[in-house]
Amino acid sequence: MPHVLGSIILVRMRQSDQREQEHRPMSTCLVAQSGGPTAVINASLAGVIRANQLNPLYDRVLGGIHGIEGVLADQLYDLTDLSEHDLELLRQTPSSALGTCRYKLKRDDEADFRRLADVMDAHDIETMFYIGGNDSMDTVDALAEWAAENAPSKRFIGIPKTVDNDLVPVDHCPGFPSAAKVACQITHATRLDYDAYTRPEVFVLEVMGRDAGWLAASCCITGDVDLLVLPEVAFDRDAFLAEVRAKFEATGSCYIVVSEGARYADGTYLSAGDTAHDGFAHAVLGGAAQTVKQMIVDTGIVPRGVVQDLSRAARSSNFAQSLVDVTEAYDLGMSAHMRSADPAFTGQVVGIRRNPEAAAEGRYEAELFAGPASEFANFVKRFPAEWILPNYQGITPEAVAYFRPLIEGEPKLVMKGGIPATIVPFNKR
Amino acid sequence: MPHVLGSIILVRMRQSDQREQEHRPMSTCLVAQSGGPTAVINASLAGVIRANQLNPLYDRVLGGIHGIEGVLADQLYDLTDLSEHDLELLRQTPSSALGTCRYKLKRDDEADFRRLADVMDAHDIETMFYIGGNDSMDTVDALAEWAAENAPSKRFIGIPKTVDNDLVPVDHCPGFPSAAKVACQITHATRLDYDAYTRPEVFVLEVMGRDAGWLAASCCITGDVDLLVLPEVAFDRDAFLAEVRAKFEATGSCYIVVSEGARYADGTYLSAGDTAHDGFAHAVLGGAAQTVKQMIVDTGIVPRGVVQDLSRAARSSNFAQSLVDVTEAYDLGMSAHMRSADPAFTGQVVGIRRNPEAAAEGRYEAELFAGPASEFANFVKRFPAEWILPNYQGITPEAVAYFRPLIEGEPKLVMKGGIPATIVPFNKR
Repeated sequence: MPHVLGSIILVRMRQSDQREQEHRPMSTCLVAQSGGPTAVINASLAGVIRANQLNPLYDRVLGGIHGIEGVLADQLYDLTDLSEHDLELLRQTPSSALGTCRYKLKRDDEADFRRLADVMDAHDIETMFYIGGNDSMDTVDALAEWAAENAPSKRFIGIPKTVDNDLVPVDHCPGFPSAAKVACQITHATRLDYDAYTRPEVFVLEVMGRDAGWLAASCCITGDVDLLVLPEVAFDRDAFLAEVRAKFEATGSCYIVVSEGARYADGTYLSAGDTAHDGFAHAVLGGAAQTVKQMIVDTGIVPRGVVQDLSRAARSSNFAQSLVDVTEAYDLGMSAHMRSADPAFTGQVVGIRRNPEAAAEGRYEAELFAGPASEFANFVKRFPAEWILPNYQGITPEAVAYFRPLIEGEPKLVMKGGIPATIVPFNKR
Repeated sequence: MPHVLGSIILVRMRQSDQREQEHRPMSTCLVAQSGGPTAVINASLAGVIRANQLNPLYDRVLGGIHGIEGVLADQLYDLTDLSEHDLELLRQTPSSALGTCRYKLKRDDEADFRRLADVMDAHDIETMFYIGGNDSMDTVDALAEWAAENAPSKRFIGIPKTVDNDLVPVDHCPGFPSAAKVACQITHATRLDYDAYTRPEVFVLEVMGRDAGWLAASCCITGDVDLLVLPEVAFDRDAFLAEVRAKFEATGSCYIVVSEGARYADGTYLSAGDTAHDGFAHAVLGGAAQTVKQMIVDTGIVPRGVVQDLSRAARSSNFAQSLVDVTEAYDLGMSAHMRSADPAFTGQVVGIRRNPEAAAEGRYEAELFAGPASEFANFVKRFPAEWILPNYQGITPEAVAYFRPLIEGEPKLVMKGGIPATIVPFNKR
């Protein structure tokens, strides 16, 4: 690829004197994905690949198959020259096109660190980009810390993603806005469906969020939700049932959104069943929504109910990508790559902040920034208490104002046979 | 409304001599919706309203709130002059904007027929359009039959809708294509999500279809489904589990689609639980997918599984309207209204056939036709046996060719705040 080589030389010449003096050999970067997939995690991947095509800091861009797990097993896929068309499809392909893992590196087990360094050496990998959530940012932090002592030329950079939106130092996390957009659409559509009937029945929608209720809370922005059950508020069975009864008495209907992580004061998840709390002898199986429906029926408020669980469908549905989300996810990938031109850039994560001046003027504007991985890892940002209305009544206008701009806009999707076109995942090739 | 009156007179003058000689007074038409909502049932409603604006055969278009149930209670809403903008939003508003019911008129109970005729008389209603499924077409048939003897000036015309696609004399039913489009998108997206993992787990998607497996079968068109369980094939637990085991042995994964109506040879629904069939002592609660997942886990093929149930989300999601579907649903409403210019047109339903010449050339082209309501009622068109592969292996290429054109195209949706805009349902005003 002489023309690519040419531009690398040009670019390198434009870089700082310090780097020119280094005369570093051509190197490689590695990008991998980890944790639960989202609708835009591949947009971040596309951003890294495209950035290197625009400015080939690295000779090659390798993808790690199934996250750190596959990298340790030397399972890599060359992404350097992905075509413009494939990059366009990659941006709109949901789930992790490289495959994912839930493998967590342990700081006290150096064997994995050593093995990873060996794989990196074997492929001349200088920089590893890791796209993931809380645990993955901890991995970035641990690797950078270890490398500072043991492999100073190796660098580790994080790109956040999560449908849970629970990372601390950012305004929001890529993946969450698209999941919220799906959830809002289905909330509104199923509310209309529910409202078409006259028969007394309760509707309970369950959405993801084991530790934080961001996604459940976002369902309230269309005004369709009567009652909201969040992990942030200890579930009080009697108080909740009183609210359900009041809604039926006032309006003849009750549409409820429950976070999968909803729990009692003693920490027991509603999804574990209601046996311990309802005084009934039979076990209630299933998720939190099923439990809530069953307790309402058992209490005799209404004779029947409908449950809709949006677990996997919400997080991976590319047909409702938020334009804001896909753009930001792509930009984070680009930004991480571009910032890695600085040889001192390691142990860092790029994230999104909301521009405060624009916000003060009522506009939404995102700013990208970089911060230490340690600030992104091992904390859970819960949905703010001050945005929660008492008695399961939903969220405040401030919360609605936070959510609204995130779900704006729709990318122009490339369709094939009536559904959004996707690429064949690299882990399946 | 002098200009409307004027055009009515003009139109009437252009009609047959017979009608001119009748000197009929200005009359009204009524349109109502019944049964389970779909994503495009309101497009048919918009078609009726718009047709009357283009050619005011009727002085007023009244909407019956909550189907025949509300009409009997004299709950009507004037739709005559709905604005162009509201009609545009109505077309993309999912669920039944007039509200729905599951009330079935009984042929041997004349009181309801008499009461309906009285309501029609009170509002000078000549023609009633009923948008609904199998039962609703039976209602149209029964009413037309009764009116022939007892109220000869009253006419009853059916417009079909169903997500189940199980009406007999048509190629397909409005509402089904959009539900299939949602189901295909979520099948493809959740398959990608599933494929991102390495851990052994089974994925089971459940879709609607109590008596017919059209919607479940349509999930197979993207090639993402490993095993398909339809109501049309008696479920054989051992044979099925052998196929699941074989898929895991061959590929390490198994993605299953189950119709909610899946049943054993003795007629027991899988959704009723597996207790009677699995030899295990514990009850399995939940839907068919939950039962299938549990039997796979209990058999020890894999230690865990994921269930995604698409019940309400699939049938009412306007964000994935099929352009073919919404256009055809609208056209059926228009066509029913236009055909009602013929005073002899009663007890009829308008439906869709596939143009055979176009089909022979590999093109899809729909033809509208009208047929007796009796041919639409009281039959269930099951998914054809010759389109089902043995051993739960999915569907034939002929079935894929049938489905493919139905989910083509996307209407340009009017968006509001990041989700498709809708009108306030008439039953909620």
